[in-house]
Amino acid sequence: MLNVDSPEATLRALGLELPEAPKALASYVPVQQVGELLYTSGVIPSWNGEVKFRGVVGGDVSLKDGARAAEICALNIMALVRQVAGSLDQVEQFIQLSGFVRSAAGFEEQPKVLNGASDLIYKVFGERGRHTRQALGTSELPLGVPVEISAIVRLKR
Amino acid sequence: MLNVDSPEATLRALGLELPEAPKALASYVPVQQVGELLYTSGVIPSWNGEVKFRGVVGGDVSLKDGARAAEICALNIMALVRQVAGSLDQVEQFIQLSGFVRSAAGFEEQPKVLNGASDLIYKVFGERGRHTRQALGTSELPLGVPVEISAIVRLKR
Amino acid sequence: MLNVDSPEATLRALGLELPEAPKALASYVPVQQVGELLYTSGVIPSWNGEVKFRGVVGGDVSLKDGARAAEICALNIMALVRQVAGSLDQVEQFIQLSGFVRSAAGFEEQPKVLNGASDLIYKVFGERGRHTRQALGTSELPLGVPVEISAIVRLKR
Repeated sequence: MLNVDSPEATLRALGLELPEAPKALASYVPVQQVGELLYTSGVIPSWNGEVKFRGVVGGDVSLKDGARAAEICALNIMALVRQVAGSLDQVEQFIQLSGFVRSAAGFEEQPKVLNGASDLIYKVFGERGRHTRQALGTSELPLGVPVEISAIVRLKR
Repeated sequence: MLNVDSPEATLRALGLELPEAPKALASYVPVQQVGELLYTSGVIPSWNGEVKFRGVVGGDVSLKDGARAAEICALNIMALVRQVAGSLDQVEQFIQLSGFVRSAAGFEEQPKVLNGASDLIYKVFGERGRHTRQALGTSELPLGVPVEISAIVRLKR
Repeated sequence: MLNVDSPEATLRALGLELPEAPKALASYVPVQQVGELLYTSGVIPSWNGEVKFRGVVGGDVSLKDGARAAEICALNIMALVRQVAGSLDQVEQFIQLSGFVRSAAGFEEQPKVLNGASDLIYKVFGERGRHTRQALGTSELPLGVPVEISAIVRLKR
C-alpha cells in the first residue's frame, strides 16, 4: 500500500508552523493516550504560552478573530499530537472536536467560529481530518479567552 | 442465545419515525466509528434539516417544549446510528449523552429537559438504552436552539 | 513487577472517606464500562445525595468554596469507580475530567476551581491520577450547583 498523504508535508507546503506543545500544568496533563486514541485537554488560543485572544465573540471579539482564535487552538492540538506520536503523519483519523465559544448574548454562529479549527484540520489532514464536532456557546472561559477546544484523535497502529 | 429485543420493532410499535440523518457539513461529519464505538456530533432539534425549536428554556421556551426538543435530538441520534449500523438493532449499549440546555437565568431543571431524550432512548432500547449523562446549562447555542446533545454508542461486534 | 501504589491505602492515610456512590436516576445511570474504560455521568457536589454547595463561583460562592465543591465531585467519582471496580487500586489511569464551573460575569479562574478535584485525584492516585482536563465556565447548572464534573477512567486489565 502506498501512503501518499503526509500532513507534515502539507503543513510545510502551507507555510504553517506549530507552537510549542502546551505544557503540563500542576496535576493535569495536556494529553493522554489510550490504545490508539489520544485525548487532549482543552486548549486555548495561546502561542508558546502567550494568550493571543481574550474577550467575547459577537461582542469585543469579531467572528473573524474568533475563527482565528480557533485556528490557533487547532495548531496547539496538532502540536500535542506531534509531541506524542512523533509526527502528524501518524494520525489515522480525527474523531472529535469539542469546541466552546464564549458568546455575546444572542450570538448564534458558534459553528462559523469553530470552522476556523475544523477547516484548518481538514486542509492539513484531508479525509483523515474529518471529525465529529460539538459546537457550543458559553458565558465564560478560563483566562477570558473566546474559544476552548479539546480533541480525540486516533493514531495509526 | 435468543435475542428478543428489537429497538426497530419497538420504534414501529410506538408509531415513531426517524428524520433523515443529519448531513455532513463542510469539514466535519455527523458521526465517526472507532472500533465498536460511534461518536456523534452535537445534534440540534431539527427535522430533515428544519430547526423546530429556538429560544431559551425557562424563558421563551417552556420546560415541556425543551423536553420535546430533546426528544427530537434523540431521534436524530437514532437516525445517525441507523445510517452507520444499518439498524437500531445493532446497538449493544448507549454509553453517554452530553446534553446542553440553553437556560434562562436561575433555571435549574436541565435534567428534566434532557429526560426528553433519555426517556425516549430507554423506551426504545430498554436496558441497552441506559446511558451516562452530562446535563449542563449554557447561555448560547448554535442557531439559537434550546438543546444540543451528542452521544457515544457501542455497537454489537 | 512489584506494585507499591495503593490509592485505597493513600485514601486511608489522608483520613478521607467516600460518600455513597451516586444512585441511578430514571433512565440514565451513573457509570458505564466499555472494555477497560469507565465513563461517569456528570457528578455534582452532593454527599450521600444531599447537595452541599449552590450558587455562582465568583459571585455568592468563593473560589475556595468552589474548589471544595470540586473536591466533593472528585470523591463522588472515586465512589463510582470503587463501586464498579471493587477497589480504587484497580485504576490504571485517569484519562479525562470534564469540569464545568458556574461562573459570575468576568470570572476567569475555572482552572483554580477545578484544581480542587485534580489535586485531590493526584494526591490519592499519584501518576495514575494525572488526567487531561476540560476546564469550562457556564451560566447555569442543575440544581443551581457551582460545579459539575464527569470522568473517563481506565481500569487495569
